[in-house]
Amino acid sequence: MSDTLDRLQQVLEQRKNADPSKSYVAGLHASGLNKILEKVGEEATEVIIAAKDASQSGTKEALTEEVADLWFHSLVMLSHLGLSHNDVLSILAGRFGLSGLEEKANRPS
Amino acid sequence: MSDTLDRLQQVLEQRKNADPSKSYVAGLHASGLNKILEKVGEEATEVIIAAKDASQSGTKEALTEEVADLWFHSLVMLSHLGLSHNDVLSILAGRFGLSGLEEKANRPS
Amino acid sequence: MSDTLDRLQQVLEQRKNADPSKSYVAGLHASGLNKILEKVGEEATEVIIAAKDASQSGTKEALTEEVADLWFHSLVMLSHLGLSHNDVLSILAGRFGLSGLEEKANRPS
Amino acid sequence: MSDTLDRLQQVLEQRKNADPSKSYVAGLHASGLNKILEKVGEEATEVIIAAKDASQSGTKEALTEEVADLWFHSLVMLSHLGLSHNDVLSILAGRFGLSGLEEKANRPS
Repeated sequence: MSDTLDRLQQVLEQRKNADPSKSYVAGLHASGLNKILEKVGEEATEVIIAAKDASQSGTKEALTEEVADLWFHSLVMLSHLGLSHNDVLSILAGRFGLSGLEEKANRPS
Repeated sequence: MSDTLDRLQQVLEQRKNADPSKSYVAGLHASGLNKILEKVGEEATEVIIAAKDASQSGTKEALTEEVADLWFHSLVMLSHLGLSHNDVLSILAGRFGLSGLEEKANRPS
Repeated sequence: MSDTLDRLQQVLEQRKNADPSKSYVAGLHASGLNKILEKVGEEATEVIIAAKDASQSGTKEALTEEVADLWFHSLVMLSHLGLSHNDVLSILAGRFGLSGLEEKANRPS
Repeated sequence: MSDTLDRLQQVLEQRKNADPSKSYVAGLHASGLNKILEKVGEEATEVIIAAKDASQSGTKEALTEEVADLWFHSLVMLSHLGLSHNDVLSILAGRFGLSGLEEKANRPS
């Protein structure tokens, strides 16, 4: 599972220049940054609504689908601007001391 | 890099029940779902603003920081509701045929 | 112009129970609160994008259209939950001392 | 109540160039467009969360406060970009045929 983002990134780059009439990803790139950002905002809203519903009903399927939509469209946005998930993961790794050395140092002996 | 989310998940679970006065993550959990969702919405807004600025200036550091914030707070939200990044990644893997078998079949010979 | 919200409110209440296939407003009510809130979130995102574009280009028509969309959908949301613009305006009036007496006291003699 | 926005607009214009250390409105203008847009996005998120809570609990005070915050910050944004509530109300009036003549024609005889 841990290489899902790497493999998704490959798919996203392949589809970046595909036929916009056949590929949703290519269609987003052809529509431009504003359209991609509208989708990011829409999906963030749907995550918030689904999380409130999940906290009431206990049913979490809709929430995970919406988070998948949010992460997916943020990956398309990164790709559109020449960035990738690794640029984001390296920031998170740095913030939380998750590089190899710290990880090793933190291991219980 | 590909196991950053796995390792971050471990950190998030450890801090879930830490002292809220010492851990930002514990503080978010103690404040409750609404506070966590407010952060998700705030960070989505900041991603959109930073992406518009990146497309004008060509400077992308602020954008990657904001996407890191967005992903981080969505991971805290998942944790708060008893979910993890793997629930989301499995949906993305399923949508894009990224399970082992398809990947193998798609490999150039 | 100052009674536009009053008159819009009348229209919104009239259309609340109209045929959803003929009235956009009736269609929103029939779809339910989540759909209305998705529209509020979408329009807020579009306001932010349009404001960034307006600050670059100096062209403000798109921004005023998006703010109109945001206010319109927030009025539909208020109506859906049995509230009106007056409930919101009375809060704003109270915060800023805009009731008749304060206004009178503030008038230059 | 119907002239609340007119009067609020006067207050907002007066405070636009006030001392940022003494006026919240002046502080927002001094911080710049991005800060104002962050507030618009934050308040939209809080409206959505409060509306979900209102639909569960039946308690609507928090929702009207959050809508007031959203409208207030969108008015500050309009002011920051040289626009006013009237630019938005005229669009809404035009869309819904709320000018004097149509209103008259629509009156029941």
